[in-house]
Amino acid sequence: MKIAFDEQGLCPCVIQDWNTGEVLTLAYTNEEAVRLTRETGELHLWSRSRNELWHKGATSGNVQKVRALRLDCDGDALLALVEPAGPACHTGERTCFFTGDLEPPAPHEVLPALERTLAARKAERPEGSYTVQLLDDPALTGEKVREEAEEVTRAAREETDDRVDNEAADVIYHLLVLLHGRGRTLADVEAILDARSR
Amino acid sequence: MKIAFDEQGLCPCVIQDWNTGEVLTLAYTNEEAVRLTRETGELHLWSRSRNELWHKGATSGNVQKVRALRLDCDGDALLALVEPAGPACHTGERTCFFTGDLEPPAPHEVLPALERTLAARKAERPEGSYTVQLLDDPALTGEKVREEAEEVTRAAREETDDRVDNEAADVIYHLLVLLHGRGRTLADVEAILDARSR
Repeated sequence: MKIAFDEQGLCPCVIQDWNTGEVLTLAYTNEEAVRLTRETGELHLWSRSRNELWHKGATSGNVQKVRALRLDCDGDALLALVEPAGPACHTGERTCFFTGDLEPPAPHEVLPALERTLAARKAERPEGSYTVQLLDDPALTGEKVREEAEEVTRAAREETDDRVDNEAADVIYHLLVLLHGRGRTLADVEAILDARSR
Repeated sequence: MKIAFDEQGLCPCVIQDWNTGEVLTLAYTNEEAVRLTRETGELHLWSRSRNELWHKGATSGNVQKVRALRLDCDGDALLALVEPAGPACHTGERTCFFTGDLEPPAPHEVLPALERTLAARKAERPEGSYTVQLLDDPALTGEKVREEAEEVTRAAREETDDRVDNEAADVIYHLLVLLHGRGRTLADVEAILDARSR
């Protein structure tokens, strides 16, 4: 991978969440930072404002484990796919891109948001929450998954597109609750689907 | 949204696929390109190599419909969420970032890849394909969705994590085939899940 650093020895680096696909930050890297990233497995950058090497998260603890480094067609932009230990932004936001057109979320942002909600329900256990009731009762959750599977099947056979979408949403919601109840996540299932496609 | 253009009047712009979350390109924009993007709804950029305004896809036909523009915490990087009419890269690749660590794919890349496979099977109908058999037989697909829903329920109750993941993968695969057989996609279902979360 031959990186075309610019006249200042820098290369822009798009930082993307490995699991969710969320773009977290646009930052800059240089040869030394790329070397340290490869050596340590944690994201190193070049801070243009402080004019120094920057081990992302060294101060805050929110380091980013690098799972993949990719280069663009011109060789002058990097994509780092990372598992962040915490918020990527110095403001405490999960991503630096929290301004502008946020609503509605992009389709690809919906399942990650749902999984964050499930994890929060599991941790905080708010009273009266249907999700908490399901997480506590795997038999009920299983019954719902089976029931919704029947309903989406019927919808696909003879009902409107809107009904199909709604019943499929029911299957996915209950299936994700079932997974989280077992301490599993969609990423675990995605690894299986990927392995099968080979 | 107050963009902090650099001393050359430019701002880097991360271009991301609205549906799949795939990072397509890192490019540059300026005030005029942002204005044209807002006016037309199609991505306009500034070409640093040609030193001119660049209506993305004007020549190739692979324009990019802009669904959202977001700005980062420092105001000096844009994120454009787009629906591309075709490959984003001048090489014909779907994304410009096709070099480096591509395998295994990131978890968030797996369902979009599966949906592309389903769409290809539907279009090309290769002989002996199980997916084609399912797409042609909604009753069989429905039966499989229900069967796998039962199996994931049993797995969640009494089997290993690996069994849970595998059975959940079966549910998702068959559910996506059911959706594609009806001309629906995961994005349609994600829109429902998002609406419910409000």
